[in-house]
Amino acid sequence: MTYQPPVRDHIFILADILNIDQYGDLPGFADAPMDVVSQIIEESGKFTAEVLAPLNAVGDKEGCHWFPDHTVATPKGFKEAYAQLVEGGWPALGAEPAYGGQGLPHVINLSFTEMCSSANMAFGMYPGLTHGAYSAILAGGTQDQKDLYLPKLASGQWGGTMNLTEPHCGTDLGLLRTKAVPQADGSYKISGTKIWISGGEHDLAENIVHLVLARIEGAPEGVRGISLFIVPKFLPDSEGKPGARNGVYCDGLEEKMGIHGNATCVMRHEEATGWLVGTENQGLRIMFVMMNEARIGVGLQGIAQAEAAYQAAAAFAKDRLQGRSLTGPKNPEGPADPIIVHPDVRRMLMDSRAIIEAGRTFLFWTAMHGDLAHSHPDEAVRQKAGDYMALMTPVLKGYLTDRGLKVCSDALQIHGGSGFTEHFPASQYMRDVRISLIYEGTNGVQALDLVGRKLAADGGRAVMSFFAEIDAFVAAHGEDLILKPFVEGLDAAKVQLQDGTMWLMQNGLANPDNAGAASTDYMHLFGLTALAYMWAKIALVAQTKIAAGDTDPFFANKLVIGRYYLQRILPDAASHLAKLKSGSELMMALPADAF
Amino acid sequence: MTYQPPVRDHIFILADILNIDQYGDLPGFADAPMDVVSQIIEESGKFTAEVLAPLNAVGDKEGCHWFPDHTVATPKGFKEAYAQLVEGGWPALGAEPAYGGQGLPHVINLSFTEMCSSANMAFGMYPGLTHGAYSAILAGGTQDQKDLYLPKLASGQWGGTMNLTEPHCGTDLGLLRTKAVPQADGSYKISGTKIWISGGEHDLAENIVHLVLARIEGAPEGVRGISLFIVPKFLPDSEGKPGARNGVYCDGLEEKMGIHGNATCVMRHEEATGWLVGTENQGLRIMFVMMNEARIGVGLQGIAQAEAAYQAAAAFAKDRLQGRSLTGPKNPEGPADPIIVHPDVRRMLMDSRAIIEAGRTFLFWTAMHGDLAHSHPDEAVRQKAGDYMALMTPVLKGYLTDRGLKVCSDALQIHGGSGFTEHFPASQYMRDVRISLIYEGTNGVQALDLVGRKLAADGGRAVMSFFAEIDAFVAAHGEDLILKPFVEGLDAAKVQLQDGTMWLMQNGLANPDNAGAASTDYMHLFGLTALAYMWAKIALVAQTKIAAGDTDPFFANKLVIGRYYLQRILPDAASHLAKLKSGSELMMALPADAF
Repeated sequence: MTYQPPVRDHIFILADILNIDQYGDLPGFADAPMDVVSQIIEESGKFTAEVLAPLNAVGDKEGCHWFPDHTVATPKGFKEAYAQLVEGGWPALGAEPAYGGQGLPHVINLSFTEMCSSANMAFGMYPGLTHGAYSAILAGGTQDQKDLYLPKLASGQWGGTMNLTEPHCGTDLGLLRTKAVPQADGSYKISGTKIWISGGEHDLAENIVHLVLARIEGAPEGVRGISLFIVPKFLPDSEGKPGARNGVYCDGLEEKMGIHGNATCVMRHEEATGWLVGTENQGLRIMFVMMNEARIGVGLQGIAQAEAAYQAAAAFAKDRLQGRSLTGPKNPEGPADPIIVHPDVRRMLMDSRAIIEAGRTFLFWTAMHGDLAHSHPDEAVRQKAGDYMALMTPVLKGYLTDRGLKVCSDALQIHGGSGFTEHFPASQYMRDVRISLIYEGTNGVQALDLVGRKLAADGGRAVMSFFAEIDAFVAAHGEDLILKPFVEGLDAAKVQLQDGTMWLMQNGLANPDNAGAASTDYMHLFGLTALAYMWAKIALVAQTKIAAGDTDPFFANKLVIGRYYLQRILPDAASHLAKLKSGSELMMALPADAF
Repeated sequence: MTYQPPVRDHIFILADILNIDQYGDLPGFADAPMDVVSQIIEESGKFTAEVLAPLNAVGDKEGCHWFPDHTVATPKGFKEAYAQLVEGGWPALGAEPAYGGQGLPHVINLSFTEMCSSANMAFGMYPGLTHGAYSAILAGGTQDQKDLYLPKLASGQWGGTMNLTEPHCGTDLGLLRTKAVPQADGSYKISGTKIWISGGEHDLAENIVHLVLARIEGAPEGVRGISLFIVPKFLPDSEGKPGARNGVYCDGLEEKMGIHGNATCVMRHEEATGWLVGTENQGLRIMFVMMNEARIGVGLQGIAQAEAAYQAAAAFAKDRLQGRSLTGPKNPEGPADPIIVHPDVRRMLMDSRAIIEAGRTFLFWTAMHGDLAHSHPDEAVRQKAGDYMALMTPVLKGYLTDRGLKVCSDALQIHGGSGFTEHFPASQYMRDVRISLIYEGTNGVQALDLVGRKLAADGGRAVMSFFAEIDAFVAAHGEDLILKPFVEGLDAAKVQLQDGTMWLMQNGLANPDNAGAASTDYMHLFGLTALAYMWAKIALVAQTKIAAGDTDPFFANKLVIGRYYLQRILPDAASHLAKLKSGSELMMALPADAF
């Protein structure tokens, strides 16, 4: 069975939950009334399902090929598909009109990006990282740099990468050694080795623009001495076309558990010509512009792989005949019942739906706040939206990828022995999604970002604003009989999250290890509460439709899945709260050599 | 870093927790006083670490090779290692002296089996399945069959397999179609296709003995018409040596997510000569003798892979320098601290230890009950031990493999980006362990076996006996100050497990879907309680040693890890109880076509 884009659910979220038409007077949204957006979503679904999904298993089996002349060939069919991607203008959806983009809100681009990742995660990373490079230059580049690079990156004609990691430094970028030597003409010579560079070399685009972190000779040690550079594979000539080959070479590819179709490169910079982006020693600040965007993109990958894996599992469960229902045959004419009759198979499918549908809503809802933070005329709205973006980003990345792995593992489990073979897609989804818990900052780093930076920022303004928003929802809808379980579940989760937040404020300062020890459980508690809020918002819309006479089972099903979430997923909140409040004492008690 | 056999922990469990010397007057145990057992464990560690562990990555990368003449070559080095295994007499450890075995208790064989699986899971499956075939013939074969086959299987000179699954039937064996036609000489002609046959063909042993489920012509449909047959690859000649080639052929190998070093075969039986084991149509009963043993072996694989993955992660965490401790530099001379200083890394390591050490104890404790059920002179002891074996087997298989996957995934996570590459062992451990949640009955099947059969058997005698044993422990040790948290945690878990058991009794009969819907959460609640009991037993021994003046940190560390289990793992019990009591209504509410 092939990937079925969840077009209906995307339209439901954008039209009914977020009601994007209310922002019709904002830039970007003005060009995207819901009827136009619906068409874009339909077309996104067609393109990703018809062009990208058929190449997913191919890419996994074949992988990328490295050649001694430092070139890399992507799997069969990727080049043609990439040409169609560029031809269709897909990379330009969310880019600025000034640079050839369509200027649509980020939240609409997210819809395409999810489908792209579901259909073929390894492929989707090529345009994904290109968009990251685009964002970094947009945020920190000179006007000349923007004019030269952004149109090429926006269209996808050129690819982009992020060159951060070195063999001895991943999370701790302060240790990086790649050096930049200033030249008379204002450029720099960049030298050093970067590893794990996704899309560092490939045959999809005529040029590749590397965004490289390096230390200018004489710069301070640590994170305060890191600068960001543009290092194109081919130096643009006077007409802006790919000219002389620059000194940046792919020396090999990484063998990986998954995403085989994406080239993970060792990159050697050998006196490569680079140009500074922004000011000296301010490289991390700009890199984090693209990093934050990338983190939301990674959270999206968690949900995207979960969606694809769930679909494969549901199809298998309806098709595979094995055993009989405990309550009597459901397929009496056949030799056995389809395994979807078994409650434990249902459990995994329902768990998956409960996470995917609310997780997607949470992603879109947060991304829309990003758009509002960018373009809303009201300063107060912009501030609250910006607060939410900052607060929710680590939760989206850490919580949704963690849950995404669980969904993919359950999908494999539903396939039984078939799932462990590579003849079915389940193994690939689980192997591919596994990286999402690691890159762009491991989930542990996300949790620490949440408890260490995001909670405390501006005196806790962001989280208090979130609590107030939930309180207002509870106050407004607590009397509705259908909504009652949702409101009660949400309120109980919020009380637990407040309790955990208070514990962190009291104990995290006294001993920072308490904050570290609590961080992952707190992030999960936060994610559970956020998804409870999303289900409450979904239920409100669904119930309103039903009350107005809409008999489409789509809405009734939402109420069932949402109530299932409350009964079968949300109980984990209490467990996470109990764990986080146990502190760091026992966790840190053993000496390192006892491990 | 290479695998370090947990010799000390194995000796601790056998000598101090199980105190096997108390059974010195029982057969098997009589030949295994603790000083001898300690030597066996030391030697097991040497053999597995020195001979098998170095081939683990080799086997993963190279995999097995199938040739058109239906032969299969195992990865480089496997053949020589297998010869050393046979030479060393390792397969014979637990076999009967009458058939050339050493007749040691199963619990001691388990120690070797765990190390074998940690060092090289794919390799360990070859002797593992051979032992399964041995057990089936021992349980159901004629004396002639035993005399002919058991010595060869016990020594490992011949390999063994289980041929159950067919393309259209895995869990539901009642659907199987492989047919057996009686011959004048008392043999049968077996024809049909079997899939996913581990070790179905290889170059390690001079003959392979397949235990094959098939339906005798005219037998009833469903599970009541299934018989078990011995189908050797080479028909034994008059001297019992491999003679004529039998009609059983490997037609190909499965491409799998992991255990690449084990040949997973498609087996074609083409009028293969087979001999009935036991009586007609009673094949499943005998097959379940080996299946139950195999299920404990699979639970052991969960812990074995967890142990190996944990070791790799701990070594990486002590070696990798990245960032600084939140409480000030711990490695001020170096460029950064080792990542083991970070609480969230510790969390994953401590979670792993808390599961592995109690999980291993639970496995050994249950296996020892298997030995007592077999050979204790007191009928009451045998009965209780047999009850425990039956009750705990699905919990060991389902709960410990599920937790084993989590530990392996956490170990990969601790490696960061390195974990996703195939240069480090973490990916292989996670890919290899994944099958353990599936084969020998998926974990969902285990959960259903637990709630549907094992709980209700003999009026719930087994589970009530377990509750009584815990109550006695609580009563005996509730006043000890050091043991208090263990006793309180155990008692609270037991109360929750009783609550869940009661709920099942009241609601599972009324609607069988309620039992199915509750089954996996109940199995986890059971596993959590069992491990709380193991930690209480471990704490009792450790505290007794400490009180007697033993200053070995091994014992103090056990108390720390045990208390960590209570604070950081056991809170999940309440969550599982809440979920299981929510019933099946919402889980089963959607029509199948809504998925």
